[in-house]
Amino acid sequence: MKKVAIIGIGQVPVREHWDQSIKALAVQALFHALEDANRDEIDGLYVGNMLSGRLSEQEHLGALIAEQAGFPGIEAVKIEAACASGAAAFRQAVLAVASGRKKCVAALGVEKLTELSGWHASDGLAMAADADFETSLGLTFVALNAMVMRRFIFEHNVKRELFAAFPMLAHRNARYNPNAMFQHEISLNQYQQAKMIADPINLLDSSPIADGAAALIVVPWDDVRDQHSAVEVLACEVATDYVALHDRTNLLHLAGVEQSTKSALKTAGLSHRDISFFELHDAFSIMSVLSLEAAGFLSAEEALKKVQEGYFDIGGTLPIATMGGLKGRGHPVGATGLYQIVEAVLQLRGKAPTPLQVAEPRFAMTQNIGGTGATVVTSILKGQM
Amino acid sequence: MKKVAIIGIGQVPVREHWDQSIKALAVQALFHALEDANRDEIDGLYVGNMLSGRLSEQEHLGALIAEQAGFPGIEAVKIEAACASGAAAFRQAVLAVASGRKKCVAALGVEKLTELSGWHASDGLAMAADADFETSLGLTFVALNAMVMRRFIFEHNVKRELFAAFPMLAHRNARYNPNAMFQHEISLNQYQQAKMIADPINLLDSSPIADGAAALIVVPWDDVRDQHSAVEVLACEVATDYVALHDRTNLLHLAGVEQSTKSALKTAGLSHRDISFFELHDAFSIMSVLSLEAAGFLSAEEALKKVQEGYFDIGGTLPIATMGGLKGRGHPVGATGLYQIVEAVLQLRGKAPTPLQVAEPRFAMTQNIGGTGATVVTSILKGQM
Repeated sequence: MKKVAIIGIGQVPVREHWDQSIKALAVQALFHALEDANRDEIDGLYVGNMLSGRLSEQEHLGALIAEQAGFPGIEAVKIEAACASGAAAFRQAVLAVASGRKKCVAALGVEKLTELSGWHASDGLAMAADADFETSLGLTFVALNAMVMRRFIFEHNVKRELFAAFPMLAHRNARYNPNAMFQHEISLNQYQQAKMIADPINLLDSSPIADGAAALIVVPWDDVRDQHSAVEVLACEVATDYVALHDRTNLLHLAGVEQSTKSALKTAGLSHRDISFFELHDAFSIMSVLSLEAAGFLSAEEALKKVQEGYFDIGGTLPIATMGGLKGRGHPVGATGLYQIVEAVLQLRGKAPTPLQVAEPRFAMTQNIGGTGATVVTSILKGQM
Repeated sequence: MKKVAIIGIGQVPVREHWDQSIKALAVQALFHALEDANRDEIDGLYVGNMLSGRLSEQEHLGALIAEQAGFPGIEAVKIEAACASGAAAFRQAVLAVASGRKKCVAALGVEKLTELSGWHASDGLAMAADADFETSLGLTFVALNAMVMRRFIFEHNVKRELFAAFPMLAHRNARYNPNAMFQHEISLNQYQQAKMIADPINLLDSSPIADGAAALIVVPWDDVRDQHSAVEVLACEVATDYVALHDRTNLLHLAGVEQSTKSALKTAGLSHRDISFFELHDAFSIMSVLSLEAAGFLSAEEALKKVQEGYFDIGGTLPIATMGGLKGRGHPVGATGLYQIVEAVLQLRGKAPTPLQVAEPRFAMTQNIGGTGATVVTSILKGQM
């Protein structure tokens, strides 16, 4: 298996882009990535997207985006794994290059959720759950996460307010990220007053519905021209879990996160202590807590305690959501996994906005999750600084 | 790049399966393939599907089918490339094994079009075209193909009735395939009397809306235990073209088919004459004619002439649609590409139903097309007989 490198990154600001089509967003991100890589051609395109069919009446995004970007003819497909579609597309890009069959490919994530009203987006997102046994009963995606959070609060006997530190951290970091949806802080008081969405999850526990596109250019390591800005892909590992929550033996253990993280660390030949920062999938505050535990960094109770003490801040022991995470940067579903990797590459190059730059980062871990932990893609990247 | 083998095949009969869910169909095909391969585990699952979100309110099919089949935890994703989703999933399975990262994976295609009424399926299939410039004008998928056929008839000044030989051949072969949707012949008179769907395409030019699932087990060649039944994957190549018909320089030339076929033959180190039979993508009669030409086998006019003379029959020079093709076997969109490969493996093993068995087949070509030629996946397989 060949060594694989990321040589270019591109993103559009995460916003409600009512005036731009899914094609336009995708092509912009791809062009930014090509410019950054100083390349003008690709021989493969892997598009991560969940809801273009439902919300934009458009499937077949692989061929469509390829030709819209000026590359008619190249190999191109769409990859779908709910909210993990972006990193799942990256995984296919990595395999294509690692196999020796592709020389320069793009992994692109794009999602346009504001094509229709928010109700449509909610309906669409619910398709990440089991239609026969969850969604058909009227459960939305936030309701599923709310049941998990309620169970957590009961079992651990903790106050809901403790979770506030996660979205507060995300918003603090997002302030300095020009591509973030929310560039403002939130206070504990605002969290306490926030509208309840699905008790105990309130508005500020929830990452926002948003539009966005992010892209990476992936090549064999041997073809890297500028070693300084290139980032090595040490691991990209996918694991899954039961989709329906009631099928799991422990509602509070994300088995997919555990398996995917272990597998990524093993492939990279690293241990938890080697990880300089962790871009986790904070779609809801409860997911931050559960993933930190399942990934093996620290127990859920410790995570809830340490977050109050700055453990996960930029200058802390294990920075998370360094550019705002899903909560602050925004969560354009199929694009999210690629925003995480784009941000990790910025950090590893030492090019994060100054207040967000992690000091001397060596190894980054990114983790993109689909459903309530049913698909998990964990990547480990190595900078060259 | 490692040599890759197909060691197991599975399929469910193509039917209107009103009483079975998309999960049930998928799991059956996968179990048949595992049984055929004499394996009880896989470490990766690549699901080809186009319309589960639209028609079954279910995305996230990778993780869902993995756990429903008893493999919670394994890497699993869905691949979408319109009607070429099935073979595109096979391509990802091949890359995963070729890269050395996977030891035994399944490529599975599944589609359930009869979940809702036929109108919904038509709406869904139109998402293979360009939503902004084709579908939004009211064009259906069959209407797009009808414009191509009308242009062909005008430019070549041929009678519409000449096309009848393609569906007649497909139905003749489908008679002996127990998994085919239509196990009966059709006559020229029936073709001439058939209801017009989108002039000049009539009902018998059109492959039917159907449900189905087909699966393959793919391993490194070095891990093959039973050499006799294994089939070597010599090539699996994806090419694309402009999605919207008006963007192409020649409406009658399928550039994606040309590129994908050339690339597959080059990778396999073979020429056209080496191909023993060709499972083409006869979604509409016009597509058979255009793909035979673009693939470089013979000109469109020759194809229309030779089909009347038995050139493409089982005993002919280049058998096509040997188990009924899309027209006779049926066209369960995201599953079709895998039915084609399952059928090719049966032929290469010498296990096709007797009247359909191609004599001493060495190399099979299968070609799965998404949209009106916008995604094309061409595979070349080698038998061991």
